[in-house]
Amino acid sequence: MKATYMYGAGDVRVIDVADATLQQPTDALVRVVRSCVCGSDLHPYHSMPADPGGTSMGHEFIGVVEEVGDQVATVRPGDFVIAPFAVSCGICVFCRAGLQTSCVRGGFWNDTALGTAGGQAEAVRVPLADGTLVAVPVDEQSDEALLASLLTLSDVYGTGWHAAVRGGVRDGSVVTVIGDGAVGLLAVLSARQLGAEQIVLMGRHEARTDLGIEFGATEVVAERGAEGIAEVRELTGGLGSEIVLEAVGHRPAYDQAVGVIRPGGVISRVGVPQYEDAPVGFGTLFGPNITLTGGPAPVRAYIEQLLPAVLDGTVQPGRVFDRTTGLDDTPQAYAAMDARDALKVAVRP
Amino acid sequence: MKATYMYGAGDVRVIDVADATLQQPTDALVRVVRSCVCGSDLHPYHSMPADPGGTSMGHEFIGVVEEVGDQVATVRPGDFVIAPFAVSCGICVFCRAGLQTSCVRGGFWNDTALGTAGGQAEAVRVPLADGTLVAVPVDEQSDEALLASLLTLSDVYGTGWHAAVRGGVRDGSVVTVIGDGAVGLLAVLSARQLGAEQIVLMGRHEARTDLGIEFGATEVVAERGAEGIAEVRELTGGLGSEIVLEAVGHRPAYDQAVGVIRPGGVISRVGVPQYEDAPVGFGTLFGPNITLTGGPAPVRAYIEQLLPAVLDGTVQPGRVFDRTTGLDDTPQAYAAMDARDALKVAVRP
Repeated sequence: MKATYMYGAGDVRVIDVADATLQQPTDALVRVVRSCVCGSDLHPYHSMPADPGGTSMGHEFIGVVEEVGDQVATVRPGDFVIAPFAVSCGICVFCRAGLQTSCVRGGFWNDTALGTAGGQAEAVRVPLADGTLVAVPVDEQSDEALLASLLTLSDVYGTGWHAAVRGGVRDGSVVTVIGDGAVGLLAVLSARQLGAEQIVLMGRHEARTDLGIEFGATEVVAERGAEGIAEVRELTGGLGSEIVLEAVGHRPAYDQAVGVIRPGGVISRVGVPQYEDAPVGFGTLFGPNITLTGGPAPVRAYIEQLLPAVLDGTVQPGRVFDRTTGLDDTPQAYAAMDARDALKVAVRP
Repeated sequence: MKATYMYGAGDVRVIDVADATLQQPTDALVRVVRSCVCGSDLHPYHSMPADPGGTSMGHEFIGVVEEVGDQVATVRPGDFVIAPFAVSCGICVFCRAGLQTSCVRGGFWNDTALGTAGGQAEAVRVPLADGTLVAVPVDEQSDEALLASLLTLSDVYGTGWHAAVRGGVRDGSVVTVIGDGAVGLLAVLSARQLGAEQIVLMGRHEARTDLGIEFGATEVVAERGAEGIAEVRELTGGLGSEIVLEAVGHRPAYDQAVGVIRPGGVISRVGVPQYEDAPVGFGTLFGPNITLTGGPAPVRAYIEQLLPAVLDGTVQPGRVFDRTTGLDDTPQAYAAMDARDALKVAVRP
């Protein structure tokens, strides 16, 4: 079968690999209907050292179950499924607490310990299928218009939702979203769904911020740094934002969050931090009683809750996909997203 | 009148100063009945550069109102009052939200902008008296046994309570408290009051940890570093603590908190950080979805709630005071706390 591998910065190739097969009685084999490229895939695309062995890519996919192991009870061959970006058992203390990204038996796609490969491929072996996969009442052909939105439930919508939930967004909240990528835009949508009254979107790509406005942003701030901070503070009555959803992951975005947050506020991060140390002392978080929260979204915990509005079309998170490509063209998808020609590219094997 | 000044590291003196007087129509003049030395006073006691002008000291006191300005409505001469460690107006957006430490008009004791002096003195001018002071139905003479516990409401009890509230302690919580100073011990008491099931106290001064056990700690861990972390993890079923209340403020205490926290858990800091940068990235806070919260406690917000159990003797937070001295002996109080001969010293002017 075909699968996508990265061999170093800027070097993505679609190659022939051995077909995915069941290995454990708890596995399912899923034929991929749609996968996609994630903003976080661009981090290694910028910085990965050359590696002749390559790395299997992709952690977002939806598909159809082809085969299941003897111990799999909740999905059957023929089921249409959503695969979250984390593998999880569904029964450990963390899964039961809704924190499947910390599952004691789980892991991720392209995970050495689990022996998983990536989702930018024709098929994927899914470990711990009962805990990981969610079967949805969808038909691959007749529901094709829903596929893009369903695909966002494997990562970016659940991640935006996680940001908003962890941030404590509720009726009347004053929220600032940092980042106009897919996660930032879906953080806007999530904040709107949770009742936010004011949603300031910080981003400077007009096509994206326009979509953010359609998703519910009340204002857009294109400036960054001190100027951007001043503008957000002015828009929020001089007080700053009650809640900041940080959907970038670079240090300047953290500093931006600290700059626009209100005393007593919550900074909720879902952009994967490309830094380890950051200021947290009296002059930043401690003095004004700022809360810092967030992390990798346990999207598995949110799928059932978010699904109905996707299925009935109330929300269309799939609008973050502005391009679809075949599997052979996955390298071009990376290049287009890296060049910001594309917001997010779906891959149809 | 007499007041306590610090002139540099280790150099505390009680000197004669001009009597405190009303300056604004919103001021009250309070005769100090009890003040005390705080663990945070020891930070400048270790590091303050020599300053011939000196710094007025003390931010915790209870006393009797002697005189009020024309615009003061809620306290009258003769009232027994508790003075929180922060001055606050009571009516701004932050005061109304219960975050009086971020009051837009307020500040602290010994605050240049407010022109306040410290509480380790015979009397104190209290700005914004209506927002700041809380009158309590107590008689200086006949209720003398309550004075120590009432004094904790000006800082250390409210600070321990803030740690527990911000940490989200509730029925059944698994909590670790880092630090066996007055705030750590009162964080133990607060966690117990809020229903915590397990409270591990990390501290190595047996007289203090013994009091911690009386306040509700279920286990004491004297070890620090990797060994202490391993012990707490073992005591918490290998999972780590759901909530960590950090009552020290030094970087090793932060690292200890990160080491013992459970995925999805909350680290609530009330020890004033003696550092600005700390790790918050994927390997520490982000990956396991840890929340970092806390800050200077808005003790004003908690006094009415905590007062009844103090007045009826249900709790005795004043047990953290193990010594009382006269105002002239305040320098010895600093020395005794610094040498850890005393846990916390009350000062009776």
